[in-house]
Amino acid sequence: MRGDEKLLSQIREEVTAKARAAKEASRLLGSIRTSLKNLALAKIAERLRANSGEILAANEKDLAAGRKSGLSKTLLDRLALSSKRLEEMVRGVKQVEELADPVGEVMAGWRRPNGLLITKVRVPFGVIGIIYEARPNVTVDAAALCLKSGNAVVLRGGKEAINSNKALVAAMRGGLEEAGLSPDCIELIESTDRASARELMQLTELVDLLVPRGGAGLIRTVVETAKVPVIETGVGNCHVYVDRSADLEMARRIVVNAKCQRPSVCNAAETLLVDEAVAEDFLPVCLAELVGKGVEIRGCGRTRTIFPAAKEATEEDWGEEFLALILAVKVVAGLEEAIRHINKYGSKHSEAIVTNDHSHAQRFKEDVDAAAVFVNASTRFTDGYEFGFGAEIGISTQKLHARGPMGLAELTTMKYLVEGAGQIRE
Amino acid sequence: MRGDEKLLSQIREEVTAKARAAKEASRLLGSIRTSLKNLALAKIAERLRANSGEILAANEKDLAAGRKSGLSKTLLDRLALSSKRLEEMVRGVKQVEELADPVGEVMAGWRRPNGLLITKVRVPFGVIGIIYEARPNVTVDAAALCLKSGNAVVLRGGKEAINSNKALVAAMRGGLEEAGLSPDCIELIESTDRASARELMQLTELVDLLVPRGGAGLIRTVVETAKVPVIETGVGNCHVYVDRSADLEMARRIVVNAKCQRPSVCNAAETLLVDEAVAEDFLPVCLAELVGKGVEIRGCGRTRTIFPAAKEATEEDWGEEFLALILAVKVVAGLEEAIRHINKYGSKHSEAIVTNDHSHAQRFKEDVDAAAVFVNASTRFTDGYEFGFGAEIGISTQKLHARGPMGLAELTTMKYLVEGAGQIRE
Repeated sequence: MRGDEKLLSQIREEVTAKARAAKEASRLLGSIRTSLKNLALAKIAERLRANSGEILAANEKDLAAGRKSGLSKTLLDRLALSSKRLEEMVRGVKQVEELADPVGEVMAGWRRPNGLLITKVRVPFGVIGIIYEARPNVTVDAAALCLKSGNAVVLRGGKEAINSNKALVAAMRGGLEEAGLSPDCIELIESTDRASARELMQLTELVDLLVPRGGAGLIRTVVETAKVPVIETGVGNCHVYVDRSADLEMARRIVVNAKCQRPSVCNAAETLLVDEAVAEDFLPVCLAELVGKGVEIRGCGRTRTIFPAAKEATEEDWGEEFLALILAVKVVAGLEEAIRHINKYGSKHSEAIVTNDHSHAQRFKEDVDAAAVFVNASTRFTDGYEFGFGAEIGISTQKLHARGPMGLAELTTMKYLVEGAGQIRE
Repeated sequence: MRGDEKLLSQIREEVTAKARAAKEASRLLGSIRTSLKNLALAKIAERLRANSGEILAANEKDLAAGRKSGLSKTLLDRLALSSKRLEEMVRGVKQVEELADPVGEVMAGWRRPNGLLITKVRVPFGVIGIIYEARPNVTVDAAALCLKSGNAVVLRGGKEAINSNKALVAAMRGGLEEAGLSPDCIELIESTDRASARELMQLTELVDLLVPRGGAGLIRTVVETAKVPVIETGVGNCHVYVDRSADLEMARRIVVNAKCQRPSVCNAAETLLVDEAVAEDFLPVCLAELVGKGVEIRGCGRTRTIFPAAKEATEEDWGEEFLALILAVKVVAGLEEAIRHINKYGSKHSEAIVTNDHSHAQRFKEDVDAAAVFVNASTRFTDGYEFGFGAEIGISTQKLHARGPMGLAELTTMKYLVEGAGQIRE
């Protein structure tokens, strides 16, 4: 018991000290010039390259530990770095360097009848906390995006990647120093005990925003535990609805793309809804192609009558983000039922209709409650690059502050500047 | 114990049922025309007038109970309705009717190289929960603003006002029905047990946003307890800093206005900071005027040397929102110390500098972390009407989603609509 308390107090001390250092660093970072932030990003890229030996050796330690503790192949693959992957990370930093600086934008401005001039300007949050799993690439991505948007960052990554993260952060802090900035703009929590994440989630005075990145369990825990404001990201139970008026050839291409092009990501489709009027024409061809690509079909009763190779879908399947080559399929009475199904089971991420009926497209766009609603296009386009924003910190699936792909602008807040000549309120 | 559990389960049932009904009502409300929402607001105004007898009788019951239980004079005054106050509430509803509808605004739009057309449109949140104290005017204000912005509302007011709230909500629901809308667009939680507020804060599936309105204690409780996203409002520990270059006559007018014009509100000043270079010229005149207006001065050591009538300020005074005719006063070495003091003790609400030094004004605007930063104007201008937004639901003092006065636009979120002609991701 005494030992536990001592550990807890050490963890609290580390987290608080690092968050406080980040807060202090953020005060300067918020108003420095773009050219200096870009210089720091360039130095970070250089240092990541220069330190590649140490970084890969540290990663090898994580991999060895992971193999010993029986991490799955998928997790080991996510954890693994290589010269090529490191080079991709460096390229990512260079891309952030090239993005426009969101800070300082005058978003609106007006003069009041009493002569007060009000401007609404974009400013950084201050300190952003990122809680994530064992993906070392998130360490570099998140740090670069926070830096460019003028925010200090406190990183709390998964224990499986701790050695890699230490090496990456050491390189990045070196880059900051070479650019003449405080290394505390990028802080890594080295304790990977659950308590360190919990601690970070309570620091309302020091941390302005938390962005969890990872699986549904991690995100739920952060949303339910944090006192610091959180942006919920990433869980995608996305649907494609094929309307009776759809170009069925177009529908087939969209469904196959949304399911198969990269099944492990949040904007991949998990459920296909088909209007009963076209189910018999559409399903045999489309589902056969999907099966040919290795997709497991879990269908409703009517789907299984039309396509007997389908397994039976359970109630759970409608709510599940498979992130794998599995597709739930349901025949619906029409647009109404499709919208009801999506609003009931969807995760408010990306939803698509394939239709040639204008009023159906309008209804779907209005009534489906999701960050991105597609008409005649694949759900796979919900992505910072595909939207034209550049790199993103995640896809927000909640409604406060940011929805959909979160680029640099979404990592900022605003303030009102009000200039007068002595005005007082009567 | 059994009794407690039964009560708790009844409370849970009431809160969940009403939130669910509001969610259902919100689906239609999100896309109805402005003219219909305005008709509903007009009918609500009519009904509030028509039911004034019942409403005032219900309020009399609350007042009698409040007097019996020893409510303070201030609280009884906040609770009390009269024909005149009811008429003010009705006028407030009519003003909301006249505001522009924020829903449906195309905030941005662009075509991607692959031909996808992306538009970002403003949409309602869905269901907004309001947790507040014993001010019946919040019941009507909040309901009108939520309705106009296309949101259903779940109201959970203080127990002292429960009879008034029931009568007000009955009238408003009647107005909704007369306009042909679901009465469930406005729901009142009738249980005023603490458990009902706690329950509302957990309903992440049914409630999209919580806005607490009230004192610092209420707001802290909601921020710390809620799983539903919260916008923090209202606590204002605002400062006026008088720079060495200030027009001291202008400074005096601004300080007196910021402190005295309405001391009980969040944008009133609580601390005066004065550059040491002008302290001896400025403080005697300004503080004497304040004392003449009934203000109690709590000063630092140097203030008390210059103005011996001042009491001694404690460390707590710097962090306190007095909401009363009390002013903390500190002599500072200059701009740097003023900014540090404000960023340490301020509540990120409204902060003012009085200066004629351009570089000082720039530094203050950049480095002070607050929703509204004023140069040569009173902090009292942070207000929906004064900013030109019309009625507001509160003043946000946090950085996520909305900062400063929250009008109708801040009660909405957005979604991306993406229209294609069969695009798939390569």
